[in-house]
Parts: sequence; structure tokens; C-alpha cells
Amino acid sequence: MAGSTYGNIFKITTWGESHGKAVGVVVDGCPAGVPLCEEDIQFFLDRRKPGQSAYTTQRNEDDKVEILSGIFEGKTTGTPISLVVHNKDHHSADYSQIAECYRPGHADYTFDEKYGFRDYRGGGRSSGRETIGRVAAGAIASKILESLNISIMTYSKSIGNVSINYNNFNKDEIQKNPMYMPDSNAAKLAGDMLKEKMAEMDSVGGIIECVVAGMPTGVGEPVFDKLDANLAKAIMSIGAVKGIEIGDGFAVATSTGSKDNDGFKVENGHISKTSNHAGGVLGGISDGSPIVLRAAIKPTPSIAMTQQTVNKSMENIDINIKGRHDPIIVPRAVVVVESMVAVTIVDLLFQSMTSRMDNIIKFFK
Amino acid sequence: MAGSTYGNIFKITTWGESHGKAVGVVVDGCPAGVPLCEEDIQFFLDRRKPGQSAYTTQRNEDDKVEILSGIFEGKTTGTPISLVVHNKDHHSADYSQIAECYRPGHADYTFDEKYGFRDYRGGGRSSGRETIGRVAAGAIASKILESLNISIMTYSKSIGNVSINYNNFNKDEIQKNPMYMPDSNAAKLAGDMLKEKMAEMDSVGGIIECVVAGMPTGVGEPVFDKLDANLAKAIMSIGAVKGIEIGDGFAVATSTGSKDNDGFKVENGHISKTSNHAGGVLGGISDGSPIVLRAAIKPTPSIAMTQQTVNKSMENIDINIKGRHDPIIVPRAVVVVESMVAVTIVDLLFQSMTSRMDNIIKFFK
Amino acid sequence: MAGSTYGNIFKITTWGESHGKAVGVVVDGCPAGVPLCEEDIQFFLDRRKPGQSAYTTQRNEDDKVEILSGIFEGKTTGTPISLVVHNKDHHSADYSQIAECYRPGHADYTFDEKYGFRDYRGGGRSSGRETIGRVAAGAIASKILESLNISIMTYSKSIGNVSINYNNFNKDEIQKNPMYMPDSNAAKLAGDMLKEKMAEMDSVGGIIECVVAGMPTGVGEPVFDKLDANLAKAIMSIGAVKGIEIGDGFAVATSTGSKDNDGFKVENGHISKTSNHAGGVLGGISDGSPIVLRAAIKPTPSIAMTQQTVNKSMENIDINIKGRHDPIIVPRAVVVVESMVAVTIVDLLFQSMTSRMDNIIKFFK
Amino acid sequence: MAGSTYGNIFKITTWGESHGKAVGVVVDGCPAGVPLCEEDIQFFLDRRKPGQSAYTTQRNEDDKVEILSGIFEGKTTGTPISLVVHNKDHHSADYSQIAECYRPGHADYTFDEKYGFRDYRGGGRSSGRETIGRVAAGAIASKILESLNISIMTYSKSIGNVSINYNNFNKDEIQKNPMYMPDSNAAKLAGDMLKEKMAEMDSVGGIIECVVAGMPTGVGEPVFDKLDANLAKAIMSIGAVKGIEIGDGFAVATSTGSKDNDGFKVENGHISKTSNHAGGVLGGISDGSPIVLRAAIKPTPSIAMTQQTVNKSMENIDINIKGRHDPIIVPRAVVVVESMVAVTIVDLLFQSMTSRMDNIIKFFK
Repeated sequence: MAGSTYGNIFKITTWGESHGKAVGVVVDGCPAGVPLCEEDIQFFLDRRKPGQSAYTTQRNEDDKVEILSGIFEGKTTGTPISLVVHNKDHHSADYSQIAECYRPGHADYTFDEKYGFRDYRGGGRSSGRETIGRVAAGAIASKILESLNISIMTYSKSIGNVSINYNNFNKDEIQKNPMYMPDSNAAKLAGDMLKEKMAEMDSVGGIIECVVAGMPTGVGEPVFDKLDANLAKAIMSIGAVKGIEIGDGFAVATSTGSKDNDGFKVENGHISKTSNHAGGVLGGISDGSPIVLRAAIKPTPSIAMTQQTVNKSMENIDINIKGRHDPIIVPRAVVVVESMVAVTIVDLLFQSMTSRMDNIIKFFK
Repeated sequence: MAGSTYGNIFKITTWGESHGKAVGVVVDGCPAGVPLCEEDIQFFLDRRKPGQSAYTTQRNEDDKVEILSGIFEGKTTGTPISLVVHNKDHHSADYSQIAECYRPGHADYTFDEKYGFRDYRGGGRSSGRETIGRVAAGAIASKILESLNISIMTYSKSIGNVSINYNNFNKDEIQKNPMYMPDSNAAKLAGDMLKEKMAEMDSVGGIIECVVAGMPTGVGEPVFDKLDANLAKAIMSIGAVKGIEIGDGFAVATSTGSKDNDGFKVENGHISKTSNHAGGVLGGISDGSPIVLRAAIKPTPSIAMTQQTVNKSMENIDINIKGRHDPIIVPRAVVVVESMVAVTIVDLLFQSMTSRMDNIIKFFK
Repeated sequence: MAGSTYGNIFKITTWGESHGKAVGVVVDGCPAGVPLCEEDIQFFLDRRKPGQSAYTTQRNEDDKVEILSGIFEGKTTGTPISLVVHNKDHHSADYSQIAECYRPGHADYTFDEKYGFRDYRGGGRSSGRETIGRVAAGAIASKILESLNISIMTYSKSIGNVSINYNNFNKDEIQKNPMYMPDSNAAKLAGDMLKEKMAEMDSVGGIIECVVAGMPTGVGEPVFDKLDANLAKAIMSIGAVKGIEIGDGFAVATSTGSKDNDGFKVENGHISKTSNHAGGVLGGISDGSPIVLRAAIKPTPSIAMTQQTVNKSMENIDINIKGRHDPIIVPRAVVVVESMVAVTIVDLLFQSMTSRMDNIIKFFK
Repeated sequence: MAGSTYGNIFKITTWGESHGKAVGVVVDGCPAGVPLCEEDIQFFLDRRKPGQSAYTTQRNEDDKVEILSGIFEGKTTGTPISLVVHNKDHHSADYSQIAECYRPGHADYTFDEKYGFRDYRGGGRSSGRETIGRVAAGAIASKILESLNISIMTYSKSIGNVSINYNNFNKDEIQKNPMYMPDSNAAKLAGDMLKEKMAEMDSVGGIIECVVAGMPTGVGEPVFDKLDANLAKAIMSIGAVKGIEIGDGFAVATSTGSKDNDGFKVENGHISKTSNHAGGVLGGISDGSPIVLRAAIKPTPSIAMTQQTVNKSMENIDINIKGRHDPIIVPRAVVVVESMVAVTIVDLLFQSMTSRMDNIIKFFK
């Protein structure tokens, strides 16, 4: 594929540059009859909206989504849903600086190498605004999952060296602090730490954790389209992600079989596991336990501190990136991770409907 | 997809159960004119062969590959290459034990839930033997990369709590010890530790590291088919992998922008980076530095120690898995990781040929 | 796939309903550096525009295309090109009649059966306006083909019982008459015939012919992605097409091998064929001769004449379709056929770049 | 795709050259629990077997299929089904003649142009033997359709200038004559005509017709994956097919809307059509009437008559193709067309399961 389409049955195609006319997504393969309105999507988009706190950019975006197709009388029709968000905030001038050089940690250099030139305005296609299409699609996928009683909870597990304390875990807290942390105390500490980093003209990374509850068993295809494999691709495809793990993840490297294996037990005629080190996936197929995964998010590459780079005249130069930039990507990326998880699960959930002939015969009766 | 096909232009389709008649792969989209013989593939398969050491199973497999199509007069023809390895070692009787219950850490339960029943002989499709097709395809992809001067080095970075010491790093050592470690001392320590684990009827995990040298810039598609995203899927699709990271990976979570960003420099008219925290990928596109990635491998789930599980009569039972099993998966998985990396890079390398119109015009002139 | 995406490397995704807010297409996989502006696309769209003659609807559409992404400083950037055409002409009221019943020859019934309900305004997704996205994408594909000196000529071969006379064939005439016929005399006769059909409140079908010149040899993949197979899908996917043939097409059924085989000859060191019964394709691969294909287009299903149908209350009723409708689809479909041919050829042309290892090595040198 | 894989959910991958070691197919996405044995597949393969009559080659093939994976205790397991047929009849010597020149009507020239060289033995990948994999997959698809009460009838409609008379139509006759015609009288006339053609060292073409009964409504995706579009690709991808039509096909070109439109009627509370000019497809979606399609098959390109061609030394030469060849392809292609239709319908039938949210909710309850 050319790279902007994801999914096999529930298929999303995103488009748009940071400072072009608009960004958007086409969602194809959404079943007919899903109640959907612009507010449902706007609710998700607002979760990635900047300017909500002292720690995220004040750039004045309102990112209002418009539905152009696929909805009739308040329900999806089964045809492609085209969503567009117009780019309001054009200060191309602000970006004249980066037109001539390569920002460290950004894709400026690789885009020039791949395509011969690039839309240098604000990162173009590799800007964070590319995720607007993902989140809009994620809102639709989440509506589908809701109607199947599958729910996703996503939050910041750590920001820089500040991690949440699971003893203080409070789901309701997540939406209440600008860190999207389920631990108000950790959120406060993270906020203080970020202030320092901003003063140092630096930025930090962090870890996002996602838990999917209510998963039916049997979702995920053996071998290449394993549930965890597709989740890994979906999440690693988000710009700032440098690592992804499922269940105990990298900790399994120093664990033992006796600790890592989850036993099975029967309770009131129902099979479950005695633990969930596997993160809800066995052999790439959902086992009925919650899906648990984590993504490592790199620090914001745009920092005010002087950095070494080169310009198009092939000269070694110093660069000080102008303009105000978030010292942290994590909080705004929480809803992006959740969206990619939702899209991936819907796609494999639909695929799993054809795994048994007896169910297919029942379906067509 | 139904899950057994991977790749868009260079496409592989694996098939086969552990104790069926055979396992194999069809490689479609291999260019014509690649010199290829069975020995090229056998060399790769032998790297995943068991029975090479005290730490891997003595099960007598010889896994001889046979080429059934796609080769003529010693070269690929451009048509599908069908490779088959016949299963020699059928002791279905050995597996009668697991027919009736679910082994912890295995996919027995999820296969039954997804398909209604399963081929319980030795794990069927979710057995480690499924990787034979991947490795055979990887051998072909590696021949293609070789001819483009792209080379892949893969090794065990850690086994249980024993990690390599990069000061002792010796590439030539990798193939010389049963741990596939580039550090003979670490390999010896790991061997001793494994003996203990076997005595304890337990198993351990570890980490595999892979470095790709000679990558051209511009490989990888923005957004969903990023080089790192596709690598993440390819590697997470390997049975025992629970985590995947690129470059500094999870370490970025506690790093800062000033440390994590790689500067650019010009030397003799050629642009390179001052460091490689990114692992050779910027915005999902290769930047000319080596691709560096790591995979977390879980401990062998089959252990002799008593474990809690359930049987098909829905009774809680204890299970002691019979037969001799490796206490470690890592060494045999090294070539599997390398194979999936090779296949993924070839596929995206081919895709990248159409990124610039000027190059396309030149090609057809 | 969910049905609105076509192509593997050069990939188009169309969206939009006849009377929704807009229709459009996302073109992904277009190489960077193709000069492109809205006029290039508008030129193609205007070829399918109604209201150009006495024989096509006077409905006032102007169908102005807007480029939302993928272009920078007059050239494609290699990222998705999003094109939108806003629907100007909303008379939903006009369509109240068809909301409650199934129009013969239309997809009203099958959409209700598949999706449970439908956007009944003007045919929704199954309206002829769906082809706007195809044509916009075709304009881009044609720009690519142009730069490779591949040209496509498409015209009406017959309208009802009026066929062109190849002795009068004049390429320049095609764009000069409302029938898009390369024979002015046939065009005039067809016009007179259509006037009669309109008086009879009836409609007619016809045949579109397409000739692709300048094709390189070697385009098309053996077996399932043959050049002719993909062209067949592309063209049969156009609403009103009921048949597709290549070269001599259905005439081969009564031909003989000695007549149907094209001989080969050498002239000035260059191999060509002595005839082109095959239509430029041998074994699914282009042979260097012109690609020749024909599509059978059904009569406009919307006719004023009374027809038998049923309503949603499951009553047998008579229907007289109101509003003015073209008595012929063929002329407006000419550019749609040409567009689908262009998109298909570009996609397979790109695919063919990886068929030989020696060319790949040269490319990356 | 690289061309040897077809289908999205029910996915088949064929491989193998005419005179390589074997030919085969991997069928992925087949649901678990379909009763399947080698006899089921052999029954289909025997329908394409040569040497059954005076009019087909006496070449001694037995084409015994072997199942290598995907079946356990007589039922499909949901994992890939690998089928292989070993090539028994190697007389490469017979083909030395064609190694050095290009046979008219064959793909020798285009394969050389595309790949730089070719496996010249018996046509290699472009041989009729490539269809063995298709037919084996078709046998599996047909088992699935059977269990859903969907049945396919395929037969020779015409051979050369001899067409069946629908007044003599007798379904049971199809398997009884070497022409696979449902009209014994036409079959006899066709046989006599073929004897003449053989005497003239020539060959003829014909038309295959296929009727699918018991189709549920709602199968087929709007726009690009229309049921008729995918059928067109599937059938045009068969080597000798030069045209494909649905319902009235090319006859619609001279028909009128009033004749071509199928009315709707209600009978005992059930909606049906008053005719079936559309061939069971409206807007690309099955309408509940039988699917009716026809394929035009070209004359056997290998004829004994002297033909003009060129050799690899770029000389104009005459060729007389040695060895005995069928004067007609049609009868052996009947089961190939049926197989491609079966595979296509299964794939779209599965896709259609996700078109309505209410059905999906029911499915997962």
C-alpha cells in the first residue's frame, strides 16, 4: 500500500498536511445503522486539542469536524464516511526558518530524501495534525465497540521520570488533569517537572497504557494478523512512538515460564485465567482477559535549546527552533493510541466473524 | 486478510501444522534473476534447527527444504516460489495428553474458542514450526538485500538476567555459541544459568537485537506503512514476542529532547547524523543510519513444573507437561526475527521505487 | 475490501452520495513531482458534465473540484491527494417519489436489502455522481501516463443501433460532438435516433471503445492480476457496464486459431506483431501493441414510461419516473471508462518495476 | 499484489509451472468445520482432466491432489489449506523447439520481455496447468456454497459456430458429453465440427455460460468491489478468456430501457423481479435472482498449421507447433470458470456479513 490506508474490512484512509487547506479521513467498511453525529467525533477530537493547559500549545485551533458523506438521518449508511477538518491557523511565515534546514528528530530530511522536496510548512504530512484523521476514525470505531460492550481506557502511565502509583489509580481522574493520568498526585508532580523542562528549553517523553475490557475470545488471526501484531503496527505507526509492548512486555525477558504463564481455572462453568501476564492475547488471539498494552512516546523533538544540524546548502549550522512547543507529547497522544486500538480491534472483530462454518450457516439462515 | 499472507509487493504466504504432513511457504513478488538454490534456504533453516546444543531439544528433525516452483536454471523466474519442508517426526501419541486440556501460555484455549476445535498435535498451526515458512522466505529476501549491499546482523542481547557486554562485542562469535550471543563470556554464563533453570523444571526469556546496515534513505511509507510500523507488526507476529522497540525504544520515556534528538552533520559533502537514538528511522522513513530494533521474547511456556489449568470436561486440574522442552526460545528465534526484518525491508524497498516521478521516468526510458 | 478503494500501489478511495454535501476521492501512491493543478482535473470532470447538449440533462451542476491536500507549489508531494466536489443541486423534494418504492434497473432494492435502509436522494452512493471521484483520479493517472508517453483514446463506438464507420474515423471529431463519436455522420444519426427515443419516453444503450497507445511491454502480473483482468474489474465496476472485452473479445468464440493468433515479425531489429487480435495483451502482460477494449453500457434505467414495481408497503404499483433524464448514458461514461483504464495501467505499470532484479539493482545504484 | 493471490477474506494463492516439480494452491480464510477430503477436490480436478475424449489431449496426466495442511479429522481447521499436484509427465525435450522462439497467441514473448527469460517448458507459469490450483480452490469454495444452498451450473454455450438450443436444455446432459453441453445434439454437431478443424490443423473458440442459483440478496460491495466487477476480474484472469458479460451483457447496447429494466413484483409477501436481464446484480449487489454470466474463450493458440514468428536470434521464421494439441479449450475451461465464480462469491458473501450493525450485534450476542 501507499501508506495512508489502514485496515482490511474496516478501512481508514487519512490525508492532509499540517498547513494545507484541511486534513481528514475516509472510513470505509463501517456497517450501516450505527448512530453517528458530528458531536460524537468532535468529542474525540477535543481530547487531542491543544491549548487546554499550561503544558500544551496555545495555538488557536478549534478543529471542527464536518461529515461530508456516509450518514443519513443520523445513522451510518454503510457507505464511506468522509470527515474533514479545515486548517484554520496558517502562519506559514513562522515556518520559513525550517524550509531551509533539517530539524533534528523530525522527518524533514527523510521526506526530502524520499520525495525530492517537501511541504515544509509545519511538518506537512509528518506533523502531529496527521493524527486528526486517525482520531476521527477512532471515534467511529469506538461507537461500534460500545454497542458490543467493549470499552477502552487509555491514560498516561508515566511522564518523564514521574510514574503513576497504581494504589492511587482512579479512572475518573484521567479526564480531569492535563496529564491524562489516573493519579492526581502523579499528575501534579509531572506538571511541576514539565515547568522545569520548559525553563530548561527541553522536553520529555513518557509511556501511555491502554486497557481493553469486554473483549470476546477468538479475535485475531493466527500467524501474521495476530491481534497483538496488528496492534503493534497500528501504534508504532503513530509518529512519536518508539516502542510497543503487550501484557508483561519487555519484563518477560527476565521472567520465568512458571511466573509468566497464566493458569486457567473454571468458576461457575466459565473458564478464565488466574493472571494476565499475556495481556489478553494467546497465540495472537484474544483470550477473554483485558487487552493490556503500552507505548513508549519520545520527547517532543522541537526544543528551544540550540541544536546542531545542516541546511540545504550543505552547511553545518546551529538551530534554535522558534515558537512555543509542548514540552511533552504524551497527553495529546493518549486519544491517538486509543483510536488506533479501537480501529484495529473493530477490523479484526469483523474478520473473526468468518472463522467458523457453523456460525456462518446460522448467520445466513 | 485471513492472516497467513504478509507483504504487499514482496508477499509471503505460510502454511502448515506442526504435525501435519508438511509446512511451507509461497513467496510471490520475488523479482526474476535472483540466483537461488535449496542450499541458500537450507542455510537459513539450519540456523533455527533444534538439537544443536544441550539447551535445545534433541527432537530429531532434519527439516530439508524442497523448492517446488519459481526457479529455473538456478535463478528465480519472477513467478511464485513454493517451498516445502516435510514433517518427519510424528509422535502424535506424545501429544495425547494435551488433546484434552489447555496448556498455560499456549494457544490451545484460544484456538478452541475461535475455531470450535483444533489440531492438538504439537500446537498445530501455533507451533514454533510455523516459523519454518518465515525463515525460508527470509532466506530469499536476504539474497535480494545482499545484492543491494544491505546486511542484517541479529543476535541474543540477553538471556534471562544475562546480558551481553558491548565491550566484548564480537560479530564473528554470534554463530559460534549456542546462544547466538556476540559475547562468548555472556554466552557461557547464560549456558550455566539455563542448566539451573532446567534443573528447576523452569524456563527463561530474553531479548533479541537486530541491526540493519547499508539501508538507503527514503524507505518506508508515511503514516500507516512506516518502516518501523511494519517492522513492529512483522516481529510481534512471531509467536513468543511480547514487545518490540526501535532505536532507544522504551528508554525514550525517561529521556529528554536534547538527548534523544540526533543532530545532523555534513562531512565531505555527505549528510549523516551525529548519533542514532532514532534507530535509523525518522517519520517512518529510513534516514541512512543503521536500523536498530529489539524484541522481547517470553520464556518457553512448556515447562515440566506442575501448573494449574482446566480440561475440556471443565474441571480444574494440574498439568505436568511431558517430554523434553527447551528452557529458552531466544536462540532459535534469532533467525526468525532476522527473516521477518528482511522480508519487511524488501517489501518497503520495492514500494519506495515509485516515490518520485523523475525516477519513474528514468526507469521506463 | 469494503469496496470504495481500488488499486494496490496507485490507490484511489472514492466517497460521497449524490445528494450529500459533497463527493470526492483520495488518491494515495501518486509519485512526488507530478505537475498538477485544479484545471488539470477540472478538464476531465467537464468531459462528464451534463447539460452540454440536447441529449443530456439540463440539471445545473458545475462540479468545481477543489484540491485539499497532496500538492505543494504546483507539484504532487507524494502524499495523499484529497479532491472534493461540493454538491450544489439539492432538490431532495424531487426524490420523495422514489423514497417509498424501488426503481426498476436501479440499486434501490439491493441497497435496502444489504443495509436495511438507504439514502434515497438521487440514488445516493449508486448514483452516477459516484463517478466524479473516479474521473478526478483518472485525470491524475493520465498526467502520469502522459509523462511516460502513454496515451488513451476513448469514444462511443455505438449508440443504440447506430455504430461508427471506421472509414470515417476521425480522432479530432470525438470531442466535437455530444456523442463523443469519432464519426460525425454517425453522431448525427445517433442524435436523431435519441430524439425519437425521448419522444417514446425510452432510453438506449451502446458501446464504448478504448485504445491505449505507447504501452511498454511487460505490464501486468501473471495469473490473477493480469492487465486485462484488472481492466475488466475496473470497467465492470462502473455502474451501467454489463460487459467488457479485450481485442477481438466475444468474436473469438467463432474465430479459429489460425485467424486469432497474432504472428510475430522482426523489422529493423525490433519485434512486433503482424496483427492485434489479442488487443495488446498476451498471458495478461502487455505485448507492446495498443491495448484495445470495449465496454457494453446499458440503457438509462430512469425512463418516463410506466413501469411495474413494488413499494415498501409491499404493494405492486406502477411507477412513472419524474424529472428529465438522459436517454443515453454512453457519452458521459466515455471519460469514466478512460479514467478507470488510466488508473489501472498506472497501478500495474508501477508494479512492473519490480519484475527484474537487474533493473532493481540499477535503480538503487 | 504480485499477482498469484486472489481474494480478500477467502484468499487463494496459486503457484507452479507446467513442467516444474508440482503445481498447487494455498487456500487461506476457509472457515473451520467444513467437511473436506481429497476426493472432494479430486472430483473437481477430474472435470478439467485431459484425455477424456477424442477432442482433448491424450497426454497421460492423472493429477492426483494431496492435502498437506489445514484439515484435521476430516474437517477444515480454519488454517491455510495447502494442496499440491505433482507434475508427472515431463518431456522437456518436446519443448526444446519453443525455447528459441515465440509461439503466436502464447505468452512466451511477454514473459521474456517482463522477466528477461522464462521457463520455456510447456508454457511454464502461463500454461493451462496453472488452473489446477484455481480448480482445487474452487472445489473448497463450492463445498462452502453447498452448505449455504447456493449452487452453480456451468456449461459450454457454444463451440465454434455450434450453439446450444435452449429448447433442448438438459442439465443432466452436461457431464455426459465431452463438450460439457446441456444439449446432446449440439454436442454431437460440435464434435463433428472439431474433427474437421483438427484435420485442418486449426482450432476454434467458444462461449461458457454460468448460472448461480440460491444467491442471498445483498452480496457485493458498492463501487469497486461490485459482485459483477469481481467476477469479471476473476474470469478474465483465466488464460484464454477475452470477454466477460453479465445478464444480457453486450446485447444491452442495442436494447432499450423499457426492455432491459427488470420490473419488481410482490408474490405471497416476497419481492422478486419480473425478468432477469440484469443477471442477478443491481448496483453491483446480488438481487436474489440467479447470477448469469458468460465468458468468451479464444481458440487454442497451439495449432499444427504453419505460422509466422521470430526467434531469439531476431530472425523471421515459420513455426509448426509439434505434438498433439486440443482443437478447443472450452470444455476443459468450464470447471475453471465455475471455480473462479465460486471463490469470488464466497469471498464477497463473507464480506457482506459486516454490512449491518444490527446483524453484527446479534452475531456477537
